[in-house]
Amino acid sequence: MENMTIVAVDAMGGDNAPAEIVKGAVDAVKEKANLKVLLVGREEAVKKELEACGNSLERIEIVPASQVIETGEPPVAAIRGKKDSSIVVGMKLVKKGEADAFVSAGSSGAILVGGTTIVGRIKGVERAPLAPLIPTRDGVSLLIDCGANVDARSSHLVQFARMGSIYMEHVMGVSKPRVGIVNIGVEEEKGNALVKETYPLLKECEDINFIGSIEAREIPNGAADVIVTEAFVGNVILKLYEGVGATLISKVKQGMMTTLRSKIGALLVKPALKSTLKSFDASEYGGAPLLGLKGLVVKCHGSSKSSEVKNSIIQCISFKEQNISERIGKNIISSK
Amino acid sequence: MENMTIVAVDAMGGDNAPAEIVKGAVDAVKEKANLKVLLVGREEAVKKELEACGNSLERIEIVPASQVIETGEPPVAAIRGKKDSSIVVGMKLVKKGEADAFVSAGSSGAILVGGTTIVGRIKGVERAPLAPLIPTRDGVSLLIDCGANVDARSSHLVQFARMGSIYMEHVMGVSKPRVGIVNIGVEEEKGNALVKETYPLLKECEDINFIGSIEAREIPNGAADVIVTEAFVGNVILKLYEGVGATLISKVKQGMMTTLRSKIGALLVKPALKSTLKSFDASEYGGAPLLGLKGLVVKCHGSSKSSEVKNSIIQCISFKEQNISERIGKNIISSK
Repeated sequence: MENMTIVAVDAMGGDNAPAEIVKGAVDAVKEKANLKVLLVGREEAVKKELEACGNSLERIEIVPASQVIETGEPPVAAIRGKKDSSIVVGMKLVKKGEADAFVSAGSSGAILVGGTTIVGRIKGVERAPLAPLIPTRDGVSLLIDCGANVDARSSHLVQFARMGSIYMEHVMGVSKPRVGIVNIGVEEEKGNALVKETYPLLKECEDINFIGSIEAREIPNGAADVIVTEAFVGNVILKLYEGVGATLISKVKQGMMTTLRSKIGALLVKPALKSTLKSFDASEYGGAPLLGLKGLVVKCHGSSKSSEVKNSIIQCISFKEQNISERIGKNIISSK
Repeated sequence: MENMTIVAVDAMGGDNAPAEIVKGAVDAVKEKANLKVLLVGREEAVKKELEACGNSLERIEIVPASQVIETGEPPVAAIRGKKDSSIVVGMKLVKKGEADAFVSAGSSGAILVGGTTIVGRIKGVERAPLAPLIPTRDGVSLLIDCGANVDARSSHLVQFARMGSIYMEHVMGVSKPRVGIVNIGVEEEKGNALVKETYPLLKECEDINFIGSIEAREIPNGAADVIVTEAFVGNVILKLYEGVGATLISKVKQGMMTTLRSKIGALLVKPALKSTLKSFDASEYGGAPLLGLKGLVVKCHGSSKSSEVKNSIIQCISFKEQNISERIGKNIISSK
């Protein structure tokens, strides 16, 4: 079928593999007719889970891979040494054009290294950033980069801004996405050496809608659609988001349980509160794309359940249909 | 009186000056008998507020200063140009030994510049970090540095760890405070160039209780008592803490108002919830000390109300009684 998107999925990656991964894949093909999934991993284990889901292999294929890269393994050695791991085999499918995308909840380090060394960067792309969607007051923003590319240079950040804009416009449907750079004040002269060097370069970019510096306080308010920062700061933002959220919600629950009166109140507010807080849960938005590669690689949370796996797989369809990799390639070359 | 702590207070700094500042000062001297406050600012305005509080100048003195440094002014020019501003006059009182500490809710930039150029650094201290207390699940941690010292070197971070430990032990009463460095993973080989260089230096420090790297996700859990990081990342952490907190609380309120059932529940949980969330509000913990100076300088939030001003003033008593500046001076010299 011409319009079929083929997604290779790491059936062995993450805390809940293979059960939740296989379930997510089955749910995704049920929901989308133009989707085919290649489940990469240990054949017997995957087959058993597929049978448990009642799937008779319609638009699902198993691609055998005998090895598994564990989270603690040094990524470079793991990618080089475990040629028959689900991550290496899955990424090679993308490399050879047999799959459009690869989705994994496995080792972040191995996914980042494999993305660059196996799938490979688009010509002209200096670094491949990891770009999760994070929840805001009324929607989501793209945080770019949260990957392993620490100690970035200003030219990297400019490319992140461009790639992030293309993603938000064509995958998320945001017209003229607002691009902001994370800073410690909004004035142009503020910032560290990297931000001061990058700011004027972003201002000169005609193909993005640069709105200037944004302070971290404004990120949850949705002050920008694309939030540009180097990976160390991006990682701190992503993880603090989760940490403050989890602590506050447990405080709220604890607060509600202090008196009899509040306990009764808690029973009444619970259903309404649950659905509101769900919209502020990062895992609802699927995985994080690794942008700038010759094919899509998506990293899901290690703790992903089937719904996040499903959302991550479905996300790959727009990415393919909107030709994001080609758009990025053309944009990067034109701006050279 | 021998044991009196004398605190100079910027009566003109912050969004709610002079009313809330003067009220905070009056409340502080009411609460602590061994405290004297010098209110620095426009005499007429301060006098009027004092009268409104019913204070007959017991242990409060007005020190006239005719100028005010505004938040938007370039800090270096403001400190040099406005010799009769409340910030410059107040800091000179500390410099001359006429006050033990200076508390201000005014321009952060001017306070940081004035701290270093007027009060001056303790011999051997390379940079003066701004170190706010941030709320955690069951207590508070010291986040050091959140100041204007971006692009720090590893030797600065080591001094921050030492100064932060002294503060948490002797002002906050935490025995053997756990010191962690903010990182993007817990393994020793992880991090950017600065963290990789600083990590082994902290490991070698015999006078601190270094527990290694901490990820941002663990900060709200209270994983360390002293959280060491350079100012750019520290500022992002501090502001994101506020931003995520504010957004989540507004989401919770919004969630409670969606149905009739949840509205009734909200009325019942409100009082209990309010007191729990108050413990997670950074402004409850007073201002942030600027450490490593020959006298104490405390920066309060610009939006401070009288209770934060009061807490910040009272905090200065332990700082003086515990001889924090002398302890820091001896520690820095001994480690040379």
